[in-house]
Amino acid sequence: MADLQDTVGAFLSRCTRGGGAGALAGLEWAAKDLFDVAGEVTGYGNPDWARTHPPAVADAPAVAAVLAAGARLLGKTKTVELAFGMTGENPWYGTPLNPRAPERFPGGSSCGSAAAVAAGLVDFALGSDTGGSVRIPASYCGLFGIRPSHGAISLAGACPLAPSLDTVGWFARDAALLSRVGSVLLPEGGAPAVAGPLLRPLEAWENAEAAVAEALAPALARLEATFGRACPIALAPEGLSTLQTAFRAIQSQEVWASLGGWVTATRPALGADVAARMAVARNLPAAEAEEGRLLRRRWQARLRPLLAGGAVLVLPTSPNFAPLLTASAADVQTVRETTLRVTAIAGLAGLPEVTLPAATAGGLPVGLSLIGGVGTDRALLALAVRAAQALGLA
Amino acid sequence: MADLQDTVGAFLSRCTRGGGAGALAGLEWAAKDLFDVAGEVTGYGNPDWARTHPPAVADAPAVAAVLAAGARLLGKTKTVELAFGMTGENPWYGTPLNPRAPERFPGGSSCGSAAAVAAGLVDFALGSDTGGSVRIPASYCGLFGIRPSHGAISLAGACPLAPSLDTVGWFARDAALLSRVGSVLLPEGGAPAVAGPLLRPLEAWENAEAAVAEALAPALARLEATFGRACPIALAPEGLSTLQTAFRAIQSQEVWASLGGWVTATRPALGADVAARMAVARNLPAAEAEEGRLLRRRWQARLRPLLAGGAVLVLPTSPNFAPLLTASAADVQTVRETTLRVTAIAGLAGLPEVTLPAATAGGLPVGLSLIGGVGTDRALLALAVRAAQALGLA
Repeated sequence: MADLQDTVGAFLSRCTRGGGAGALAGLEWAAKDLFDVAGEVTGYGNPDWARTHPPAVADAPAVAAVLAAGARLLGKTKTVELAFGMTGENPWYGTPLNPRAPERFPGGSSCGSAAAVAAGLVDFALGSDTGGSVRIPASYCGLFGIRPSHGAISLAGACPLAPSLDTVGWFARDAALLSRVGSVLLPEGGAPAVAGPLLRPLEAWENAEAAVAEALAPALARLEATFGRACPIALAPEGLSTLQTAFRAIQSQEVWASLGGWVTATRPALGADVAARMAVARNLPAAEAEEGRLLRRRWQARLRPLLAGGAVLVLPTSPNFAPLLTASAADVQTVRETTLRVTAIAGLAGLPEVTLPAATAGGLPVGLSLIGGVGTDRALLALAVRAAQALGLA
Repeated sequence: MADLQDTVGAFLSRCTRGGGAGALAGLEWAAKDLFDVAGEVTGYGNPDWARTHPPAVADAPAVAAVLAAGARLLGKTKTVELAFGMTGENPWYGTPLNPRAPERFPGGSSCGSAAAVAAGLVDFALGSDTGGSVRIPASYCGLFGIRPSHGAISLAGACPLAPSLDTVGWFARDAALLSRVGSVLLPEGGAPAVAGPLLRPLEAWENAEAAVAEALAPALARLEATFGRACPIALAPEGLSTLQTAFRAIQSQEVWASLGGWVTATRPALGADVAARMAVARNLPAAEAEEGRLLRRRWQARLRPLLAGGAVLVLPTSPNFAPLLTASAADVQTVRETTLRVTAIAGLAGLPEVTLPAATAGGLPVGLSLIGGVGTDRALLALAVRAAQALGLA
């Protein structure tokens, strides 16, 4: 550990803990710096947050579960400020390098966890995913990642962003380990199965850049050869942008509910992007969030029964490769919006999504996602192992 | 009863039975002449069958259940010879009139039951459905009809055609009565729900004549206004004709297994069409049926989990209006083939399908079908009641 060279700027702090017998014995890991680790200040990507919060008195249950399984914690990884961003930038602590594409963003908000795993500094890492914060960096950095069913894993001891959308997720370099970590964190028993068929949501594929859809096409074909033809389905004829709008409204309202008190009391220094988003959150008309929740209920009523019998959606995790660090603010904003359109599919419905590093084009990785019914997390991880074999990734 | 004028040639024989207290008290009904009614010869649409079979010693369980519910049986209705045909013709007993389109076929094989209900001679009637024998006459005659989940209702005391595909179905002029009969015949309790979403199988809509698809479009739009947008889905990119081929092969093999012994021993006089189909059945290579069963397993594996969570397929019941009685043999054969492509969707998967008289064009009725998951029969009938209200049919 002492000789761990953090060549990609993934870690915010080191704190060796654990390492013993258990299901994850012999493995090393890191936790995004929004999870409580007893005795450490949880920094949440912002110096004023760190300054105004005392050291955690206990481990977050998710952290405790991984430690109890014998894995050795090596430290806490950088997060986007207040986990409120998708590129992986942090104006205070620096942006971790994307080990697979150093001139590009690592993706966020779980940027440090992704970078640490992609660089081989740890075997796996915990992150959190509200609007794509595990799935997007996994796609950008060529990793396996999971956003579990909403509520499947306790968020106690994790800084809140938008509680009705927040989830605990994680990254690994292979599907077997992704699944093994799930066996420690996910609820046991009575889990519904994923039995197929594969469904290919047309809007999600149309939303992807042509180069991404082309790069993923052979992977989809290999999955079809193993699991049967994917049925093309139009899930959102009203347009995916309605999902994005609903997601943003719900998220904004909850962000202000979670963090507005602290912002008002502390008047923290915030990076320009997060400050702007926080202002939007503060001023969001309540009616917009109400409309968003109404759409979410409709979306859940459409998606959940569709997948309850074991069907699985297959779609591009992100509609683009990692953007260049030199991309204009306008381009980054466009990426953010087109990305939320697809990450909101599982996000609004509360469904588990596993992303696989299924393709590269010109050396840039891009993920292919599997979304299963509520509570199918363990089965979906097992399916991802088989899918990874079919894709030659395992 | 004595003054019942069978203006449409629906009945083969009269036999008044039942009529008392119960869930179906006060209603009159008829049974297709392939169901055993104690003391009566079950004729199965063929004089040699009638001649070579003694009177039934007991009521078929389905008949007994309806009688026990208090409905008054008025007689037995004509069936296509050996239930092996779709137009409703019977060369021995005459073809019942289609009360809604007297110059056109009533549809079959449950032609007499459909004609009797459509003409108002009875409130409801039992039929059977192997490849569309309830759904098609219901569509042609403007009736509500159901083909239940395979195996949901006992076929004991009913002449077999192709047992792995045969089902007991029924007709009514309104959805509420269709559902009420279901509450007597269908298994009780623990029934899965239908929760949506609606799925619009693209191939089934593309398979329909343009005039049928146009006539049904406003009905679909009204259902969408009530139940939410129907997701277009490509269920059979390999083509619906593969379903038809599989269905025909399985059916042919089982028809010969069911009836070949009798045909060989009795050398019955058969109408030209049925004689030709029986020759095909006799000579079917076993490998074709085997291939059909393989495709059926794949189709079930695709459809059942898709609908297990409550999703419902919505599709044209038949791809055409009732053909003219004067249609050429070649045209009738084409109708038969294009029809089997869609009736095989539920047929091969063993799924329940309810057809609603959702539209007419130029006075000709055509049905819109709802297909639910296995065992959702009661919920699907309840959904049909709500759908009928949305369509202004109730």
